[in-house]
Amino acid sequence: MTSRLIPEVDFARDGKQTGFIRLFHSTHASAYGYIPIPIVVVKNGEGPTAFFSAGNHGDEYEGQIALTNLVKWLTPEKIKGRVIILPMANFPAAMAGRRVSPIDDVNMNRIFPGDPDGTVTRQIAHYIDSELLPLADLVIDLHSGGSSLMYVPCALARQSDDPALYQKQLAALRAFGAPFTYIQGGAQGQGGDQTLGSGAARRGKIALGTELGGSGTLTPAGLAIAERGLRNLLVHLGILGQEEWVEPPVPTRFLDVRGQDYYIYAPENGLFEPLVELGEEVQPGQPAARIHFPETPWLPPVEIAFKAGGLVMCKRIPARTMRGDCLFHLASDLAGV
Amino acid sequence: MTSRLIPEVDFARDGKQTGFIRLFHSTHASAYGYIPIPIVVVKNGEGPTAFFSAGNHGDEYEGQIALTNLVKWLTPEKIKGRVIILPMANFPAAMAGRRVSPIDDVNMNRIFPGDPDGTVTRQIAHYIDSELLPLADLVIDLHSGGSSLMYVPCALARQSDDPALYQKQLAALRAFGAPFTYIQGGAQGQGGDQTLGSGAARRGKIALGTELGGSGTLTPAGLAIAERGLRNLLVHLGILGQEEWVEPPVPTRFLDVRGQDYYIYAPENGLFEPLVELGEEVQPGQPAARIHFPETPWLPPVEIAFKAGGLVMCKRIPARTMRGDCLFHLASDLAGV
Amino acid sequence: MTSRLIPEVDFARDGKQTGFIRLFHSTHASAYGYIPIPIVVVKNGEGPTAFFSAGNHGDEYEGQIALTNLVKWLTPEKIKGRVIILPMANFPAAMAGRRVSPIDDVNMNRIFPGDPDGTVTRQIAHYIDSELLPLADLVIDLHSGGSSLMYVPCALARQSDDPALYQKQLAALRAFGAPFTYIQGGAQGQGGDQTLGSGAARRGKIALGTELGGSGTLTPAGLAIAERGLRNLLVHLGILGQEEWVEPPVPTRFLDVRGQDYYIYAPENGLFEPLVELGEEVQPGQPAARIHFPETPWLPPVEIAFKAGGLVMCKRIPARTMRGDCLFHLASDLAGV
Amino acid sequence: MTSRLIPEVDFARDGKQTGFIRLFHSTHASAYGYIPIPIVVVKNGEGPTAFFSAGNHGDEYEGQIALTNLVKWLTPEKIKGRVIILPMANFPAAMAGRRVSPIDDVNMNRIFPGDPDGTVTRQIAHYIDSELLPLADLVIDLHSGGSSLMYVPCALARQSDDPALYQKQLAALRAFGAPFTYIQGGAQGQGGDQTLGSGAARRGKIALGTELGGSGTLTPAGLAIAERGLRNLLVHLGILGQEEWVEPPVPTRFLDVRGQDYYIYAPENGLFEPLVELGEEVQPGQPAARIHFPETPWLPPVEIAFKAGGLVMCKRIPARTMRGDCLFHLASDLAGV
Amino acid sequence: MTSRLIPEVDFARDGKQTGFIRLFHSTHASAYGYIPIPIVVVKNGEGPTAFFSAGNHGDEYEGQIALTNLVKWLTPEKIKGRVIILPMANFPAAMAGRRVSPIDDVNMNRIFPGDPDGTVTRQIAHYIDSELLPLADLVIDLHSGGSSLMYVPCALARQSDDPALYQKQLAALRAFGAPFTYIQGGAQGQGGDQTLGSGAARRGKIALGTELGGSGTLTPAGLAIAERGLRNLLVHLGILGQEEWVEPPVPTRFLDVRGQDYYIYAPENGLFEPLVELGEEVQPGQPAARIHFPETPWLPPVEIAFKAGGLVMCKRIPARTMRGDCLFHLASDLAGV
Amino acid sequence: MTSRLIPEVDFARDGKQTGFIRLFHSTHASAYGYIPIPIVVVKNGEGPTAFFSAGNHGDEYEGQIALTNLVKWLTPEKIKGRVIILPMANFPAAMAGRRVSPIDDVNMNRIFPGDPDGTVTRQIAHYIDSELLPLADLVIDLHSGGSSLMYVPCALARQSDDPALYQKQLAALRAFGAPFTYIQGGAQGQGGDQTLGSGAARRGKIALGTELGGSGTLTPAGLAIAERGLRNLLVHLGILGQEEWVEPPVPTRFLDVRGQDYYIYAPENGLFEPLVELGEEVQPGQPAARIHFPETPWLPPVEIAFKAGGLVMCKRIPARTMRGDCLFHLASDLAGV
Repeated sequence: MTSRLIPEVDFARDGKQTGFIRLFHSTHASAYGYIPIPIVVVKNGEGPTAFFSAGNHGDEYEGQIALTNLVKWLTPEKIKGRVIILPMANFPAAMAGRRVSPIDDVNMNRIFPGDPDGTVTRQIAHYIDSELLPLADLVIDLHSGGSSLMYVPCALARQSDDPALYQKQLAALRAFGAPFTYIQGGAQGQGGDQTLGSGAARRGKIALGTELGGSGTLTPAGLAIAERGLRNLLVHLGILGQEEWVEPPVPTRFLDVRGQDYYIYAPENGLFEPLVELGEEVQPGQPAARIHFPETPWLPPVEIAFKAGGLVMCKRIPARTMRGDCLFHLASDLAGV
Repeated sequence: MTSRLIPEVDFARDGKQTGFIRLFHSTHASAYGYIPIPIVVVKNGEGPTAFFSAGNHGDEYEGQIALTNLVKWLTPEKIKGRVIILPMANFPAAMAGRRVSPIDDVNMNRIFPGDPDGTVTRQIAHYIDSELLPLADLVIDLHSGGSSLMYVPCALARQSDDPALYQKQLAALRAFGAPFTYIQGGAQGQGGDQTLGSGAARRGKIALGTELGGSGTLTPAGLAIAERGLRNLLVHLGILGQEEWVEPPVPTRFLDVRGQDYYIYAPENGLFEPLVELGEEVQPGQPAARIHFPETPWLPPVEIAFKAGGLVMCKRIPARTMRGDCLFHLASDLAGV
Repeated sequence: MTSRLIPEVDFARDGKQTGFIRLFHSTHASAYGYIPIPIVVVKNGEGPTAFFSAGNHGDEYEGQIALTNLVKWLTPEKIKGRVIILPMANFPAAMAGRRVSPIDDVNMNRIFPGDPDGTVTRQIAHYIDSELLPLADLVIDLHSGGSSLMYVPCALARQSDDPALYQKQLAALRAFGAPFTYIQGGAQGQGGDQTLGSGAARRGKIALGTELGGSGTLTPAGLAIAERGLRNLLVHLGILGQEEWVEPPVPTRFLDVRGQDYYIYAPENGLFEPLVELGEEVQPGQPAARIHFPETPWLPPVEIAFKAGGLVMCKRIPARTMRGDCLFHLASDLAGV
Repeated sequence: MTSRLIPEVDFARDGKQTGFIRLFHSTHASAYGYIPIPIVVVKNGEGPTAFFSAGNHGDEYEGQIALTNLVKWLTPEKIKGRVIILPMANFPAAMAGRRVSPIDDVNMNRIFPGDPDGTVTRQIAHYIDSELLPLADLVIDLHSGGSSLMYVPCALARQSDDPALYQKQLAALRAFGAPFTYIQGGAQGQGGDQTLGSGAARRGKIALGTELGGSGTLTPAGLAIAERGLRNLLVHLGILGQEEWVEPPVPTRFLDVRGQDYYIYAPENGLFEPLVELGEEVQPGQPAARIHFPETPWLPPVEIAFKAGGLVMCKRIPARTMRGDCLFHLASDLAGV
Repeated sequence: MTSRLIPEVDFARDGKQTGFIRLFHSTHASAYGYIPIPIVVVKNGEGPTAFFSAGNHGDEYEGQIALTNLVKWLTPEKIKGRVIILPMANFPAAMAGRRVSPIDDVNMNRIFPGDPDGTVTRQIAHYIDSELLPLADLVIDLHSGGSSLMYVPCALARQSDDPALYQKQLAALRAFGAPFTYIQGGAQGQGGDQTLGSGAARRGKIALGTELGGSGTLTPAGLAIAERGLRNLLVHLGILGQEEWVEPPVPTRFLDVRGQDYYIYAPENGLFEPLVELGEEVQPGQPAARIHFPETPWLPPVEIAFKAGGLVMCKRIPARTMRGDCLFHLASDLAGV
Repeated sequence: MTSRLIPEVDFARDGKQTGFIRLFHSTHASAYGYIPIPIVVVKNGEGPTAFFSAGNHGDEYEGQIALTNLVKWLTPEKIKGRVIILPMANFPAAMAGRRVSPIDDVNMNRIFPGDPDGTVTRQIAHYIDSELLPLADLVIDLHSGGSSLMYVPCALARQSDDPALYQKQLAALRAFGAPFTYIQGGAQGQGGDQTLGSGAARRGKIALGTELGGSGTLTPAGLAIAERGLRNLLVHLGILGQEEWVEPPVPTRFLDVRGQDYYIYAPENGLFEPLVELGEEVQPGQPAARIHFPETPWLPPVEIAFKAGGLVMCKRIPARTMRGDCLFHLASDLAGV
């Protein structure tokens, strides 16, 4: 089925176009109104297409600001090919500063390929999946840890089954040049086959992502990585000239995220005390966290240990926690890269 | 008027007592139920009384966990005098991990001296003010920055008008030994005369506070400062013996928080990009922040500069911001200490 | 201060008048509208005044229906004196079938004497306290256990400090003729000095109440007790003639509700299993209840015992429970009546 | 008690100042933030002070736009004296387009003189009452019917007990020049002594108001009346020169709003069908409205008649109605003006 | 799949039947309850069937009241054939006076053909689509502008691809006799193929609609048009006799609604000032509206111009507006009718 | 499609395993967290599998507690075969004590067979339907009346179309031994083909259910029936040895629930007064209930009569009622058992 969303821009036209994707949403307060999702297209002749997306989760900011800055810097004269920029992909969530949309309470990165007749977030996902992804050669969806997690700054990709495409992923990730890069295997990992990136992969695109910070704040370091990485990707694709290349200070360190044992979850409701820091290397059996119970402060805390060893690449931010919340997420060095 | 809350502990009895302050709250779901606010009293003979409080704001955790640990460590044998510990002062807010109570949406640290016939939060404040504060010689209310702010770890006091009491405040703050300590002048500063600390000051107590981290998370460094500082305060008061003293690694640096020019506020709704870091020394006129508008990404950001110079002791966490939100808060070195 | 509410009835006029008390409430949906609280006055010449109220808690129904039936049965010809009937005292709560008002989330029976400039519920309480209670010789506020409690059917009074008035209370309670009648001492008991009944007592009225069932349902037995009891009260006062008297099947059993030990509270959050039944006589130390934890079903339940002995006059209905919820409430035989 | 709000403008300084009144509101999302209530002061030397307010109810727009336009047009050079302009008095309500504040659900025009330690709306009212009203000679609070009512465009005043002040009110109302002007007697009328206008009257000011349209929309006719009327008031006071006077097309027709019989209320919940139009003259006994019951469409509607005669100056907009909603409001010609 | 809804009426039976369509909705408050959607069927022997629907949007009232009146007037004796009347199609929305259902927040006119296992609104749409529409020869779904829009009173149809059916549409619209009638082309227009009317068109019915007013109020003029038009439609179909025909005062003016350029949308969040009136003829480039910013009243407003010319047939009501809200909607004269 | 839920237990392994089914739910507060649905498997070699479920509706407690107790009592040594226990099937609803899930407002027993990509409740239903039901020979889903209904304690089954399976149902129901057992015919009855039991029946399992009390409370009698019945079922299947059999005090009485005439619904909004009691035998035409209108107490109540005769097996609890609420539900003796 065809999307009901209407873009104000013409993707086939040369030049720089700014406008909105109109998602008609007929409500009590606005019977004929639309939700205005900002979009920018810069095109100059033939060449590859890069599709840059942020605001898939509304409380992740490095990508939103990097793309907002890129919109103002990019001109048709500077490029060859096409760049499509979607800085607030889940616009209602991004305006609210929330992971999920306040309209339908849906997490956009768990519902791809979307639904043209679904609720607002499902319609946006469907538009991206069916109208924007097919236009692109390379797709990067810029994430951070959001309100509940903090990451060491990293880029990422889900390993393609196609070895040639996997090599293209690795090359693009080297160009992006984040301090860390992790590779997910198969359908493993958070979000499974329902993410924007999975949609891009299904269409055979070079599909990349990032986790550039978190805690619902903006980390200046993560923003700098994003800005350099995006330009380098455009150089890597030949859309920008080589003079725009900025060498990353250190080569990216490739990591591997293996099974559920690399994730540490809260066993009880309570207050989470981390016993290790982001970026630390830990051993199996090492104490990871305590859960405290100040509502009955005379009870002892519960202590949890790591089941596997590795690099602490992600930790939970809010101390108030529920059984089942993810507290840490490890990674190990990727063999063979 | 007398509080309607009923404590399960007897403050005059020797020994270690644990229990709840019962706040009867007759609701649709529980007509005769009470809200169980945990409290612990440890007493051994005559001597001074320390009153330690945390969870005044429910999303500030260093204090809650430090007191939960202290409850288990303290025994009557170890002390001389009395320690009263309230780890979740605004219990409904603390259970929800929210700054304000989910029951009445009230910020407990803006309503002292409370009201015995007001809503739940006002009743708690009144109980603390009228029943607990009078028992104490020294009061410390442990705060952190909460969900929206992050602080360099510091202790604080509002300067008493009574020079002798001010000297006692300074001595106690030195004993607490946080890396930074700031002094607020007069009725200035956030919360004015409506905080728990102001209530303690009105009663002539040595009234202290802290800001030990923030972002709604637990910072292990802040927790360590709290745990050392609380024991040192008990030694300082003579409640614990000198053998429990732990020398702070560096003497506290005293700071002064002056007028509104030391606070930087967001001039527009948008995304906040900090241009300086916590702990940095800044100059008047130096760029402080940009506000970006990704909903219209082709518009330039707004840039704001510092009006005064000083140490960046506090910054806003959430990047999504509204006109009027506080972005930074400066301090300068305190003269004459 | 004077109430802002306007009655459509004239309390000094003979005859039967029906109408509404108008509480002007200026909202987004109705700028000049009023909340229509139904009231009926039946008057015939000189004589005592009875004030009958129900719907103070909106989810207690025996009283609401008994008064709705009485409104249709009473005529000026049948009486001497005056009867004022308020079947839905907290009208917004009663229309919603909720203990507390959906407008301001206030429990009307915890805020007497009310406030003429407070929120809606406080304005109603103030009107009743300042305008209706002064008109009455005898006041009965008809309650049941509400959504969270179930009672053995009983009438009740808070013992007046004035021995003569206390005798009048006892006489009126005998006339009402519930199977059980309990007497509260002093300022003890749920609601303290903030109930409608306390307001009536402060004005020297014969102030009575009931607890006629509960569980948010209508118990036909409780309704029958209310209907007989209300007519008997009118006969007892001389407002109705002796021919309307209906002898209760058994004399009322007078009970005494003593201190906090007669109340059993949940020690943990979980599922409540009662181990005794309403109306049962229990001994100190007898098991009262278990709290189960099906979210971790391999953990054992917590068991609680009665601290005092007595008659189980009230038990909690919802099995899902929180620490601090009242599970049972005992009473013992009243000496000296 | 003194207000805690801090204005960014200096009311004593000559020139044109724009800025915000800062109302510090410490929330989960912004611990140290303020609510920015826009204010403009234009002053040139000595002379009278006019205080113009709109947005007291957030869904009334003629005043908000008229003052927004006036802010840009007024310069110190054009005036003698001072004009204080508050275009969004209840800023949170006005931003939300709601009659009452979304923060505390309070109707600001029913709580004067406010409370410096109350909820947000009460603090604003207190600031206006204690800080702004004392500065003024003449106060006009610009209202329209809001979301639930539509008015014939009119100005209004509550008749002062002081005959000299009443004459000043009448003169100012003639200068304002609305098509209709109504005078309220004594403490009668919607809002009683709790409105902004009542606050101004208590301080002996020339206190005026308007009702310039309604239905939550902007009526261009009402806006034109406001813009002409405000300038004429400034000319009338001598703040603007005579050359800015614009003669109203017709002299205002003075009306009198008498007691409760001039208001028609819905007797049942249902759909409201008006049988007369705004501006029509009606007779006692004339059918006013029907209430329909489409949920049981085979039942007949209820018909209501006018109790008094007069001019229909106000009618309810939403057809969906509840018992107690005001459907119409009449007025009659004022004698003796 | 088959609908789970159960009608209390038998559509095949002669006579007048009133009752409810039962939509079983198992909730916390009512485990086995149904939602009672009122329906009336009047039948007398063989003949065509008219299906009249209103309350598809709950805040549109001319249709709801016209059908409520028609229910009481129609008798089997008066007709030949069958009339099916559904005055509150989206019953929960209509009881709430909201465009969309308060149960699932769904706009019923954007989800046809519905879903028998979807949420409540989807189940109603499916019942209408699969059970009621097949019974009808002519379908009219009575709309008005709702809470956010006001229309010049008009009837409408989406032009059928079948020329013979299109001629039947035109004839029926002439019989209905609204002052204006507009024809939508193809799948264009608000609601696309997801409206009740589109469902009727898919089944080859004569599918009509109306827009009879708006603003969430009842316009007596729109009600009169509906009442005359519905009877004329029954005469036109031969269900009522010719003696019930009432000639419209003027023949309907046929209009054409073309593409997106005929719609004017808000470019910013702010207050909407219309610069033209409903029913006015406008030219391309003519100023349409201003958007004001009273939160920063010293900033100039934004002005928007019409891109196309035509008749202003619809305008937005609420002045508070968001980027993307529809402000006006134009139409031009339809050629060839 | 395959479920995305991950069990911590291995259903093929011998022994007693306790753990959680992990339902990953990525929210603002917990980006990578899971919902922990408790599950216990006890297995000992070959033999039949019983699947016991409770908490399908979160406010029905006999089953939740019976299974929580069974978890602790059952050991591999005691059994032959396998028992799978799911005490809180709709975990979020059960933790909230609500019939429907607070996350998606979905009634789990109206959406089988669920959806692996639907909202949380749909994912749980799909997991049960696709992963747990296929493992079982016999399935019992333990219900009670919930917050809105009270039942005489009974077991139940929907009559299988397969006569052999129907005989197995009857035998299992006799073993369960509830005082009453009712048989539903065909697709009739509440929930139709969308219940857990219908899912089990579609897979050819012996599918049973219960209704053991209600009112949102725990009835000790219902709990005792459940505990005895579950063990007897395990004996009946040969999983437990014959020594665990407990003979029911009386043989079950088989009942038949026929069509819609056996259900009594509220005809109006008001207060429900039951005129018969649970367990009573009633006659057609006998008065069943009155609906009272205390908001207009001078109006007479509406009285409703039974249309059919039978045993009153279920009645509504909340007195506040809406048109369409089910008030009673009858049954008659089942022929031929």
